[in-house]
Order: sequence, then C-alpha cells, then structure tokens
Amino acid sequence: MLDAWALSGRYVRVLATIAVATLFLSSATATEVQQAISVMPAPATVQLLPGVLLIAPNFSAGIGGHEEPRLDNAARRLVLELRRQTGMQLSTKLVDASSATVEIRVRHASGPVQDVGEDESYSLDVDPGGAKISAANPLGAMHALQTFSQLVEITPTGFGVPALHIEDAPRFPWRGLMVDVSRHFIPVDILKRNLDAMAALKMNVFHWSLSNNQGFRAESRVFPKLQELGSDGLYYSQAEMREIVEYAHERGIRVVPEFDMPGHSTAWFAGYPELASGPGPYSIEREWGIFDPAMDPSKASTYQFIDKFVGEMSKIFPDRYFHIGGDEVNGKQWDANPKIQSFMRAHGIANNHELQAYFNERVQTILQKHGKIMIGWDEILTPALARDAVIQSWRGQKSLAEAAQKGFGGILSFGYYLDYMWAASQHYAVDPAANEAATLTAGEKQRILGGEACMWTEYVSAENFDSRVWPRTAAIAERLWSPQDVRDTDDMYRRMETMSWRLERMGLAHRTGLNAMLRRMTGSEDVSPLGVLADAVEPVKEYTREQLAQSAGKTLTSDLPLNRLVDAVAPESEVSRRFTKSVDDLIAGHFWDPASEAQVRSVLVQWRDNDSRLQPSIQKSFLLKEIAPLSEQLSSLGTAGLQALDYLDHAEHPSDDWKLRQAALVEQSKKPTADLLLVIAPAVQKLIQASENGR
Amino acid sequence: MLDAWALSGRYVRVLATIAVATLFLSSATATEVQQAISVMPAPATVQLLPGVLLIAPNFSAGIGGHEEPRLDNAARRLVLELRRQTGMQLSTKLVDASSATVEIRVRHASGPVQDVGEDESYSLDVDPGGAKISAANPLGAMHALQTFSQLVEITPTGFGVPALHIEDAPRFPWRGLMVDVSRHFIPVDILKRNLDAMAALKMNVFHWSLSNNQGFRAESRVFPKLQELGSDGLYYSQAEMREIVEYAHERGIRVVPEFDMPGHSTAWFAGYPELASGPGPYSIEREWGIFDPAMDPSKASTYQFIDKFVGEMSKIFPDRYFHIGGDEVNGKQWDANPKIQSFMRAHGIANNHELQAYFNERVQTILQKHGKIMIGWDEILTPALARDAVIQSWRGQKSLAEAAQKGFGGILSFGYYLDYMWAASQHYAVDPAANEAATLTAGEKQRILGGEACMWTEYVSAENFDSRVWPRTAAIAERLWSPQDVRDTDDMYRRMETMSWRLERMGLAHRTGLNAMLRRMTGSEDVSPLGVLADAVEPVKEYTREQLAQSAGKTLTSDLPLNRLVDAVAPESEVSRRFTKSVDDLIAGHFWDPASEAQVRSVLVQWRDNDSRLQPSIQKSFLLKEIAPLSEQLSSLGTAGLQALDYLDHAEHPSDDWKLRQAALVEQSKKPTADLLLVIAPAVQKLIQASENGR
Repeated sequence: MLDAWALSGRYVRVLATIAVATLFLSSATATEVQQAISVMPAPATVQLLPGVLLIAPNFSAGIGGHEEPRLDNAARRLVLELRRQTGMQLSTKLVDASSATVEIRVRHASGPVQDVGEDESYSLDVDPGGAKISAANPLGAMHALQTFSQLVEITPTGFGVPALHIEDAPRFPWRGLMVDVSRHFIPVDILKRNLDAMAALKMNVFHWSLSNNQGFRAESRVFPKLQELGSDGLYYSQAEMREIVEYAHERGIRVVPEFDMPGHSTAWFAGYPELASGPGPYSIEREWGIFDPAMDPSKASTYQFIDKFVGEMSKIFPDRYFHIGGDEVNGKQWDANPKIQSFMRAHGIANNHELQAYFNERVQTILQKHGKIMIGWDEILTPALARDAVIQSWRGQKSLAEAAQKGFGGILSFGYYLDYMWAASQHYAVDPAANEAATLTAGEKQRILGGEACMWTEYVSAENFDSRVWPRTAAIAERLWSPQDVRDTDDMYRRMETMSWRLERMGLAHRTGLNAMLRRMTGSEDVSPLGVLADAVEPVKEYTREQLAQSAGKTLTSDLPLNRLVDAVAPESEVSRRFTKSVDDLIAGHFWDPASEAQVRSVLVQWRDNDSRLQPSIQKSFLLKEIAPLSEQLSSLGTAGLQALDYLDHAEHPSDDWKLRQAALVEQSKKPTADLLLVIAPAVQKLIQASENGR
Repeated sequence: MLDAWALSGRYVRVLATIAVATLFLSSATATEVQQAISVMPAPATVQLLPGVLLIAPNFSAGIGGHEEPRLDNAARRLVLELRRQTGMQLSTKLVDASSATVEIRVRHASGPVQDVGEDESYSLDVDPGGAKISAANPLGAMHALQTFSQLVEITPTGFGVPALHIEDAPRFPWRGLMVDVSRHFIPVDILKRNLDAMAALKMNVFHWSLSNNQGFRAESRVFPKLQELGSDGLYYSQAEMREIVEYAHERGIRVVPEFDMPGHSTAWFAGYPELASGPGPYSIEREWGIFDPAMDPSKASTYQFIDKFVGEMSKIFPDRYFHIGGDEVNGKQWDANPKIQSFMRAHGIANNHELQAYFNERVQTILQKHGKIMIGWDEILTPALARDAVIQSWRGQKSLAEAAQKGFGGILSFGYYLDYMWAASQHYAVDPAANEAATLTAGEKQRILGGEACMWTEYVSAENFDSRVWPRTAAIAERLWSPQDVRDTDDMYRRMETMSWRLERMGLAHRTGLNAMLRRMTGSEDVSPLGVLADAVEPVKEYTREQLAQSAGKTLTSDLPLNRLVDAVAPESEVSRRFTKSVDDLIAGHFWDPASEAQVRSVLVQWRDNDSRLQPSIQKSFLLKEIAPLSEQLSSLGTAGLQALDYLDHAEHPSDDWKLRQAALVEQSKKPTADLLLVIAPAVQKLIQASENGR
C-alpha cells in the first residue's frame, strides 16, 4: 500500500531482466545467474545462453518416452498456467513430442506409491526454437514444468523464456508442509489450492494432522463416533480424503496422515471414552494447550481399536509412512489410574516414559502389520523401536543427530513453525544439517531426510490460512531443495515476492484476503488508512498471544472469532522490511542521497497523517477500538522520524527533553498492543539516534 | 487507487450510519430513509424504528409455516453470508422458528417450475430482539434474506441491523441477465458465482444464449456433432446444464435457454450442413458480425431436426419459455437458393421477412408441442404468431409498445447492453415503461414484463467477464425492481459501490481481477503507476472498437488474446466520476474551498508525475507499447490542470498561446488511443476554461 516502497522491487526486476540479456556474454558467477531469473526454489545449476524462446499462439507441449496420464495432466496444467500468465488462448491438446514447443522426455515410471528418495532430478534446455525437459521419471518432469513456467517473463517483443540450461535436483528428499486441521477445520478446496502452491515450490509431502484434542477430522466407518462426536460436523469424508490423496499424487506430493496418540487425543474419547486412561465422559476440547487425557496403554482393547482403525485408514492413505504424533503426554491420567500402575509394576515398566515407549512399540507392530512405517515427534525416540522409524523434531538438530546416530531417519520442524509468525529470513536460516547435525558422518547424514513447515491452527481459520502459510513457506521450501550455499537473503526476498503474486494468480488468497478482512473491520470500501497501519505491524511472536491472554486473565478458545486486526495482517511486514533497509542504507550512506531521504520522508509523512484519517473508522467499529493506541503511536513515530530528519538536515542537535520524549515513545511502541507489534519502531529509533549523533 | 477520492465514499457512509440512528426520531422523507441504508435494489418502502439487532454468537435462523429444502438452503446461505460478513463462527443449523433470531414464515410453496409473475413480495420486521420475514412463497422469503444481510453494518458495539419495517415487491416480474457463451465460452464456476450475484440483486431470469455463429455450447446426445464440430471442445455437458438450472432454481432464478435460429447459426452447420440454405462445408465462425448462413425454412427435415432438438433440450430446461433468437437474418442464402425461391413462390411467400415469419410460426408450433412458449428478438414479431409469444427488444420501447398493443408480452434490452461500456447511470436512466410504452393503457402496460441486461462476449473472456457485468448490472437490477421514482443517481452510485465490494466478498472477481491483469502487463508486482492510468481511462463505447479496427484495416477474431489494457480496465471509471464531480463542485463554488482544491490538486499531481513512473514498465512490455501516448497525455493533462489552478489562485490570465496549446491537448486527449478513452479529459478541460474566465 506504500507505493514508494513497492517501487524498489520493480527496479530490481528491471535490472534482473537486463541481466538475463547480458550475463551469458560475460563470465557471470553462479549467484549473478541465479539473480537474473526468478525461479524459486533456486535450481542447483543454471547456465544462461543467448536468445529467448517466445510463447507463440501455437505453443504446445508433448510427451516423448514413457507416458502416463499423470504426466499428460501435468503438461496440460503447464498450458493452463501459461494461459493465466499470458492471457493467450493456448491449446491444452498435447502434440507429438518431436513437434512440441516443450518436449518432455521421461525414462520410466515412478513407483505406484511415491516413496522417499525417488529420483526427482531433471534437466531443462531452452533455446529460441523450443524447450526440452529430461527426467528419470514423472516427478522430475513435473518439477521441470514448474521451473519452465516460472521463467516466463514479459519482454518488449512478447512473453519469453531466456535460453538456458538447467540441471536440478533436490538437496533433501522430504520437503513437507504439516497442516493441523484439528484446531480449526480447513475445507478441501483450500487444501487443494495449497497443494498447488506446494507443487509450485517443489514440495513433496503433505503431512495432514487429522486429529488432536480439539477435533477428529477423518471419517471412520468402523468407528463412526470418532467424527460424529469428535468434530462438530467438521470432518473430511473418506471420499474427500481419497480426493486429496489423488490430487496430491497428481502433483508429485505424498500424503502422510497423522493421528496423534496416546496424548493429544481428547477428541477420540468424545465418542470412545473407553480408550482413555481416566474416567469419562469427554467432549472435544475448546481451549488450547496440553491436557491430561491419554489413551490407556495397559488395555488390550486399546490396541485392538488402533489395529482396526489403522487398517481402515491404510486403505485410504497409500503412503508407506503413518504419523502417530506421540508428543506431549503429561502422564497425569496414567499416574491416577491404579490399574495402569499395577500394569506397569507387573511388566517392569519403571516410569511414564517407558510406558509410552511400550505403547509406541506395540503401535509400531500394528503399523508394520499394515505395511506402514512409523513416524512421530521427538518423544517416540526409544531404543527398542525398529530402525525404520522416522523422528520429526520440534526440538532441534540435536534430536536429529541423536536419532541419526542410532540409525533412525529424521526430519526437522524446529525453526519451521509458521505459527511463530517469524520472518521468512529466520526460517530461511534454519538448516536441517546444521549445528549438531553438521558433525555427523556421511552415512549418518543420509538419515537427515529433510524438513517440514508446520502450520498449527489455533489462530488460523479458512479465511486467513493462506496468509499464514504463504509466502513464507517458500523460503523453507528453498532451504530444503536448493544447494546449501544458496543463502542470499535479499535475493530470496526478491524471488519470494514474485512467487507470492504468482501464487495469488494460481488462486491462493494470502494477499487479497487481507483487504477483505480490513473492509469488514472498517465497514467501508475505503481501507487505505487501516491498510497503512496493517502494513506497519506484525502479530506478536511465538507464544506471546497466549501469554498476554494469561496475564489479562482471559481464556482463548476455539469459539472466538478470528476477525481482529492481528488475524488479518501478514506475519511479516514487507513495508517494515523495506523501510528498515532504507533507513539502514540512509544511515550507512551518511544521508548523502536526497532522493532516498525523500522516499523515507514520504513514508513517515503518510504515517504521521494516518491517525486522523483512521479515526472515523475507529469510532464506528467495535473491532477497531483496541487498535486506537497503535494508530496514535504510528502517527507519533512518523512525527518523530520527520523531526529527526529535520535535525539532521539542519545540523541541529535535539534537546534533551525531545530525546527523553522520543525514547519513551519508542519504548512504548515496542510493547505489544492488541496482540500486534509496531515493527517499524526500531527503524524510527535508528533515525532518532542518528539525529542525536549528527550525520 | 486514488485514496483521496475513495475517502468521500466513506464519509457518506459515516453520515448514513448517523442517519440510521436519528432518522426514526424525525419525520424523514422516503428518500432520506433509503439513503440511510445501503440495500440494492432499494426496497419499495422502508420505515426506520428505534434500536439495533446485534448479531450475537448464538445467531440462528428458523423456518415456520411452509417448509421445503430450498428454503432451508437459503436460510443456511444467509448464515454463511453473515459468517463472511462478521468473521464469527455462526452455526448453520436451523432452529425452531419461534426461538430463531431470524424467523422465516412462508404461506405456501411456489410452483414446481418457477413462472413469470409469481408473488415475490415480502415483509421484513427487525427489532432489537430479532427479525421476522413473511412472504407468500419461498421466492419472497429469499429476497427478504438478501435484504437482511445487506442491512448488517459494523457499529461501535458489534455487527448490527437497524430496527425497521420493510414492505417490498418488484415493479417488473422479469428481471434478467443474458449471457452470450458462444463468442467466448464462460466456465460453469463463473456462471455460478454470477448467479449468486444475480440473486443478491433480486434478479430472477438467467437467459443463457447457448448458440451463435461462433460456437454451439450445449451438449446434444441426439445430434452430437452440434457440440463436437461446433464448439472447439468448449461446451456444457447435459449434467452441467442441469447443475446450472438447479443452482439457479435454488436461488429463485429461472433459466431461459436461447438457440438462435434461423440466422446466427453457422455453428449448427459445422456438424449438420444439411440444415443450411447454402452449400457447405461450414466451420465455426472466428470473426464478429452478421453472416449469411441461415437455416433452410423450405425443407421438412429442418423442422424435424428442430423438433427432436427442442424435445431433447426441453428435458433439461424446465422453464416455460424457450428463446429462438430470430434476429439479424440478412437473407442472402435464401435469395441465392433456387429451391427456396420456388418454395416461396409455391406458398405465396412474398419476401424474406414473410419467409422468416413462416419459419417462426412453424417453430412456434413445435415449441407448443413441447409445452414451451416462444420468446425471440424484435424481428419475430409478426401478425400470425400466437399471442403468448414474448418479444425481447434490442430496438427500444417503441417495439415493446407495438408488441403490447398487439397482445404480446415484451422485455426491454435496448439500453441494457453491457458490452456498450456505458456508465451505470446511463443504464439506470433507461426505463422499460418510458417513451412510447408510457402511453399504453393499463392493460397493455401489464404486458411490459421487464428487461434484461445483455452481456455479448466478443471482447469478454472468463478472465474479465465479472468486470464487464458487475457492478453496472446492479443499476439495471434496481431499475427493474424498485419503484419508478427511485432515481437518485448519486445515491445509486453510493449503494452500487457498497454492493460492488459485497459481490467481491461473495467470490466475484470484477475488482481484484483488474490488478492481476495489470501485473501480467507490467511483468512485475508493482502495478501502481499502471493502475493510476487504468483508473483514468475507459474502453471505447458501443461499436467503436470494431470501427477503429476497420479503419486500421484489422480484422478482429475470436483467436485474439484479451490481454490488453482495454480488456482489463473497468467499463466505468470511479476515479473519473469522482474527479469530475469534485471539479464541478469546485467551479460551482467559485473555488472557495481550499480543502477541495487541495484534493483536486493531489490527483492532478499524481497524474502529472505518473508517466515517468510508468515508463520503465512501458519499455519492457510489448503489451504496454500502445498505451505510451495515453500515459503522456495523462501527465500533460495533470500539468494543464495544475497550471489552470495556479492561474486561478493567482488571479492571472493565461496567455493565448497557453490556451491554444491546452485546447489542442484536450482535443487530442478526447480521441481514442489503444481502444481507450481518457475520460478525465473533459473535467480538466473545465478547469482550463475556468482559468480563462477567472473565479
């Protein structure tokens, strides 16, 4: 919404286009070549060549070598994407490979059930006459098609793709997105568009967390009370789950279902209290947190139930992996149950940790019976577990390293929690093979399979789901796909913004959804002043929202509407990132550039004047009352920044009184209000400090 | 994109809210009451009462009296719409009517097949404790539910509906939207969201023009070559057509299919050349215009074909009316066919007009056999036609008046052609009962059934369809529903803008689609300078696009991509309308108000500075080359307007040279460029003229 800052992105791209035209002539570095195109995740190697392939009205795709319907569909999806990109009425009819504009050659089929570590590599050759894609199997070809469509740019003569040679393959075989559909139900159509987005980012695992205390979201026909009493009617039918599995498979994405046990399982007990270790009745949990109910590991009937249930779900989810959760059991129900205590004594089980290990081992046997491999969170890691089990770590690389040394596979989710509301750059800096994992032997390192972004949905509904996942997940996707040395954060942001709009064009609503929510809050078509504030704030980070509620004596529940400003604004503010960078550049350059200063000033003026524009909306809307102090602070910071620049420009020294007042303002502005942080405050503080020091 | 102008809308709404709170205390006029709410089309009578009904978390709807699934679904759709409006997790479970927040009472069912003139009236009573809807049948109740949801506004204490009493009924029983899916195919999902929009505007006829020279879009199983050779594979399956009929019926909308005959029928002949009056072979037409091919009215086999085809389609389309088009037969194939000529002589048919009348009468007999009533364009009006036929007039109220006098029903489409790219106010001013129709007797007037907005799709694709239809069709919907004396254009625009955003929230893409198209043209995320230009222009009007192509020796075809600026921009510029109004107010007030002048100046500054911001995009995009002169003109007009204000402010007289140069600029700016009109030019011209006259 701040055009001045939006401009800088454009200039970068103009430069990038010029770069494409000239780089092949010079001896460009790998980084320079990467920066000349906007593919995300960055391919392993790119070699630019002279010329451009123009997208003509008779553009066509054709399959040579191994053929299968999934590959045909992927080729047709490329044409549909190019239609959206160009507005041209291209034909989706596939032609003979030898005469196709894009020739796709695949050597053989991929497995009937997609597996971890299948060959996903591809090569892509573009010259002015056409493009050739070569891959071992359809998975690589589908990745190549994503790369191709991301290379299309508008040029002075038409839509074109630069001539080039790309050899590409993923760094990690497991690149996932976990979605918690228990805390809030996410409808099928939204999941589907997110699978489209995952495919665009070359992600290959959709980890579907289908049950937790707050809801059991999968239809069971064997145990129908699971969804009937455990979901408020919000669950996926078996047909819908099969539809998602098929939709994902068509896009080279595995679906790993998770049914958390023995803890995080209150929703199971609403229908089947006999599974629990404590007396019922149970109803689904409306609050957030860790709760006492846990399955009874001492009863044979518990395992019989799980056996039947896993058998039923195995027919729906063909993937070799089955996620049992296994996290955060507090053991209180076990301690309080005399039968469980005597069971432990009879079996020489010393403590709850061992009891859970016992449970896991029995569940693993059940999974093996149904041809499944167990995956679970850190807590499942116990010595007696069969070595094909995979650990998903929310604790960090140390857990992965320990698991790898013991022979277990591991995937990292520590550092990839999207609900933490981190900046993309923070996620981008987290590497599954770093820290303790960096010291592993080569063989052990093979067991670090990759990672998963995690979308826990306590404050995420169908309406803001996309904006919580995208575009930040693109940074995690790149970390998991691209070579380890791809780590230029500025260039990542440049490509992530391009990707962000690309995803919107594909049907995601992470950007346009914001304005719809702002219009609700203002009750008016004019959201520009609220937009200015929305662009300058971010939601509080990690678990601060819970902590603030606790301090205020409030209980957060699943019934609360997610219609506040904190629920609408992007997790990371582009405006703040750009403003901060401009201020840093201005200070580093000792304020020598009047144009840059004018740009910073124009933003500060907008902020200064914003509160009076926003006040009428605040007056009429109960949803905006809580942000009144934030709006005032933004205006005060705008004023403070402008005054600081005035001192600098006039080479005057601010008074001690002024300094004290600004320090108090900045301090106040850094405290959360309405669960929001005024993230532009530190940059304004830098201007204030600079004015105290002079140029 | 011009925030300064967006503001004025907001203030109007702030005033409106205050008005709601105070109007019931005073003796407000009907107009004042209408202006206090934002319902469109304006209800027949509204009486405001003290108090507000707040939408609480336990909000519920319940059905009393006659019940049917369609009514249940409509009530649930209300809850879903309120969820979107409020972000609250309201339950869609219907409750007992007596305990419901919104109690819906309907006296009896509507007919199994919805008919013209069914009772659509309703009353709506809202008080702080709840709302009551009363209607004769579900049609009226569905309209009442639309009214209710449009009354919800954000307030300082929550989402609320003002207490009031509404009695409402339509002025005309036939309120339609015709969609031509032949020139460009419009997918089912887009049709569905447009049916949602129609229902929101209380429109009740979807006239589906399924065949024309450029495509036959309905699946026939009796004559499969119709779609196989006549559609490029872009057609609706019978299941899809049934789905649309059902979707429309659920929303109180009739579906009238049109299969144009005997002319406009080349697409039929691609598969069945034996139907034509001239020798084949035929292929579907790629150009626009009126073409020679016409069905052969002299052969019995033609009528046998039509009989079987109508029989097949009658099973899919239950509506009593069947549209046969019947327009624009040039007769050349008839003249050239000796068999037809001898047939005419043998039957005493004097000319082509009589020959078409003969054809129509025979087709009418076929329709009657299948229980259908004929509807067609003006040309079908001939004396021997059975009197239940209905005339749809593209010619004007005179045709309707003539038809009514002869006993035929009529609907108006003259003045409602959306492809003319008129302003909403122009359509709003067209009244089916005006001009010649105003002089009819009361009985004859009954035969004026209403009207239909017409969306001919030569330059309309799936991508820009919504923006060509909405929000302007809302003005036509209001003309057809509301009392004849509802004609305050400013208030219509106020409510139409509210409705425009409401439709976006429902899933229409007429506003957000623009930016996606602009991003394609710039090849960048930053579209703000192109947006400034886009907001200042409109597509050329009526048939100018064809005329300009003809003068340039270009042929327009269905293969041309619709990805130019003219295809993206809104048919009517909100910015231009507001700017023009501000300039008019400024001049009328003799420039006494500095704040208003500052606002006008800020817009002119933005225009003046825009070309240099837009140039980098123009340089890199082949799609933007053609708008370079427009961009320069916009900047020049910005400069001219500012200079004019300077002269006025300084009480100086501009030089003759300056005046001459500005006159040349304005003249040039009024000419179309790239099929676009710089519609802000006349307002700038007024400023220039004012500066010549002084304050």
